[in-house]
Amino acid sequence: MRMVDIIAKKRDGGELSKEEIEFFITGYTNGDIPDYQASSLAMAIYFQDMNDDERANLTMVMVESGDQIDLSAIDGIKVDKHSTGGVGDTTTLVLAPLVAALDIPVAKMSGRGLGHTGGTIDKLEAVDGFHVEISEEEFTRLVNEHKIAVIGQSGNLTPADKKLYALRDVTGTVNSIPLIASSIMSKKIAAGADAIVLDVKTGAGAFMKTDEDAERLARAMVKIGNNVGRRTMAIISDMSQPLGFAIGNALEVQEAIETLRGEGPEDLTELVMTLGSQMVVLGGKAEDLDDARRKLQEVIDNGAALEKFREFLENQGGDGSVVDDVTKLPQAAYTIEVPAKSSGVVSRMVADEIGIASMLLGAGRATKEDTIDLAVGLMLRKKVGDTVEEGESLVTIYANREDVEDVKQKIYDNIEISAQADKPALIHTIITE
Amino acid sequence: MRMVDIIAKKRDGGELSKEEIEFFITGYTNGDIPDYQASSLAMAIYFQDMNDDERANLTMVMVESGDQIDLSAIDGIKVDKHSTGGVGDTTTLVLAPLVAALDIPVAKMSGRGLGHTGGTIDKLEAVDGFHVEISEEEFTRLVNEHKIAVIGQSGNLTPADKKLYALRDVTGTVNSIPLIASSIMSKKIAAGADAIVLDVKTGAGAFMKTDEDAERLARAMVKIGNNVGRRTMAIISDMSQPLGFAIGNALEVQEAIETLRGEGPEDLTELVMTLGSQMVVLGGKAEDLDDARRKLQEVIDNGAALEKFREFLENQGGDGSVVDDVTKLPQAAYTIEVPAKSSGVVSRMVADEIGIASMLLGAGRATKEDTIDLAVGLMLRKKVGDTVEEGESLVTIYANREDVEDVKQKIYDNIEISAQADKPALIHTIITE
Repeated sequence: MRMVDIIAKKRDGGELSKEEIEFFITGYTNGDIPDYQASSLAMAIYFQDMNDDERANLTMVMVESGDQIDLSAIDGIKVDKHSTGGVGDTTTLVLAPLVAALDIPVAKMSGRGLGHTGGTIDKLEAVDGFHVEISEEEFTRLVNEHKIAVIGQSGNLTPADKKLYALRDVTGTVNSIPLIASSIMSKKIAAGADAIVLDVKTGAGAFMKTDEDAERLARAMVKIGNNVGRRTMAIISDMSQPLGFAIGNALEVQEAIETLRGEGPEDLTELVMTLGSQMVVLGGKAEDLDDARRKLQEVIDNGAALEKFREFLENQGGDGSVVDDVTKLPQAAYTIEVPAKSSGVVSRMVADEIGIASMLLGAGRATKEDTIDLAVGLMLRKKVGDTVEEGESLVTIYANREDVEDVKQKIYDNIEISAQADKPALIHTIITE
Repeated sequence: MRMVDIIAKKRDGGELSKEEIEFFITGYTNGDIPDYQASSLAMAIYFQDMNDDERANLTMVMVESGDQIDLSAIDGIKVDKHSTGGVGDTTTLVLAPLVAALDIPVAKMSGRGLGHTGGTIDKLEAVDGFHVEISEEEFTRLVNEHKIAVIGQSGNLTPADKKLYALRDVTGTVNSIPLIASSIMSKKIAAGADAIVLDVKTGAGAFMKTDEDAERLARAMVKIGNNVGRRTMAIISDMSQPLGFAIGNALEVQEAIETLRGEGPEDLTELVMTLGSQMVVLGGKAEDLDDARRKLQEVIDNGAALEKFREFLENQGGDGSVVDDVTKLPQAAYTIEVPAKSSGVVSRMVADEIGIASMLLGAGRATKEDTIDLAVGLMLRKKVGDTVEEGESLVTIYANREDVEDVKQKIYDNIEISAQADKPALIHTIITE
């Protein structure tokens, strides 16, 4: 088998066999196939696409290129959730204890944030004492006994994907549905998921800027999952403006606690209920999405979800009393309001730019080496569609420096006030197969 | 400027500016831009093509990437001919003295053969004493005084093209019209041509297997030439079977002499007259193609063309008397006939495979390091459309080994005899602008 023939076959619109995909991925991972052939093939795939079989094979060959997490010692159906990344996305913090409260095992491997999107581990570390440095045995025990645990990314998962992604980033081949879909799915499957719920974001703050692209990606991933024996569902959700009100680590933990208590922002609550319903169905704990939603509402109303969050934090060394008193979370030295310069209706809040404003405060990392400030961030006081009076606060800045003119300017530049504007729909599409 | 943005622009169907093409070619030549970005761009060009401006700019930027031969000291319009390569293609040996006899300066830089196609210098070296190791000054003097000289490829011409071609060869991006056309044209222009005549071969023995592809390539090259101020014409000619009868170095010199005398094979003669007419028009020595053809016929009929060949050989140390006595050329030890196994009409002679049969005898190189046997080769006794009786010779093998069963088998495998077959048309298309 020669790589140049595989490239030519795909270039001419042919279907690559499992053996050809294996030859490529194995050879590329071990260095036998050079970058210049891999990038050429990636560009051919960009133009010629891959069919369902090729996508499934590429995904599984990438899974097999490295370590795989063995969650077989954990009872029940392990349902993982994946979001394509957004701003102020507190979803995981709420969803994990919520579905765990319905006895669905949440064995979560999480990462840290980079750029304008936050990371779950960073957020959880805003709780005093909480840590993810636990052994695999402890992780398994916690999930079996308490249905919930989070560890950091470990092991050499999908090295083929890591290498290929870095190459795609510099060769104009990132935006290829089969390559994005197999990249995401291979990571979830290598991390041990039996079933997967996908939250594909669309809009300014998202990787996919249009609904059409987001839906193509979501359908591709659902198809891959189901073709490789992992039941998968997806939703397309709005990321034209940030999700919820809080952006920043401690602020998002506080918002998660409020949401678990049933007092969270409308959009975050609705997203959590929609994704949670899918997880509960896939986890085999409800007959259909309506039944699942009723059960989720029950554990919010009776406090079981919030108690599960406390239990989870304490299991991993955290101070569980934050759920009763959120002032125990890191507090910023300064709170500065950003008053509206005119009256009207908020018509635009550019999600990624607002995320960058929060990053400027120290809430996020520009590079992997940066340290972050857990206390700082933004609390939105208005969202798109809300009326606002001149002088009324649009955003509260939580900062550990006094001069935040740069952040204010960034916020003003990215919030528009018009005569009229509708609230954007949060859930654009639900894909169950 | 970032290479990844240039790749993305072309990927999305955009037009690359001259500055962007320069950034790519200069960076790639000096090693600043890695192979994996160049191959990714080449694949994007494969799919998105380049428009006329981009093709012209790419060609000239590649010309400027290295040395350029300065032929300004040579009087007259320097017309170069380029063939895309074929089997038994004796054209240059005939054309060069033929047009030189009409006072058109032929300042030819030639190469050696590789694979199933022969090289002009190898063929000329079959003449005892002939050599191409002459100084540039001597070369210029010979062309000014005698209108004809041949030197080997020298200098660092189009290094960008060399590097890019090697990369394209292993990344499935050879078959791209803008990349092939700019590669060929940049080499001709760097070698100093004022005007260019192109012989684009089509059929089994050619790089372009279909008329459609050959014509696309020819039109692309003619357009580039005219856009960068080099008048260019092209023909599409048949290479489904070998050209003429002779395949092999000394055999082709013999055939060239016969053709210059007006006694050559019909197809070779016609091809030479067609290409020669274009060269004479571009060289400003005739008003139109018909006028040019009449003048060419005149120098064949009056012996001036053959005398020019003798003069040319002698100027570069060769034994000019071969034009009177072809037995002075290297002679093979054995001549073996290949008799037809049945009667009928020759319906197929697969050009490239017949070329390989000749290579098996030692007439060509499998790798650049191979030495070749100038005496050996094949002389076709029949061509497609000829009737043949069982036992009549199809081909005469000229060999320096007694056992040529492998060569015979190769020939039998690639010549078909049927009940009926037409002679293929030699000149498919003539492109004058």
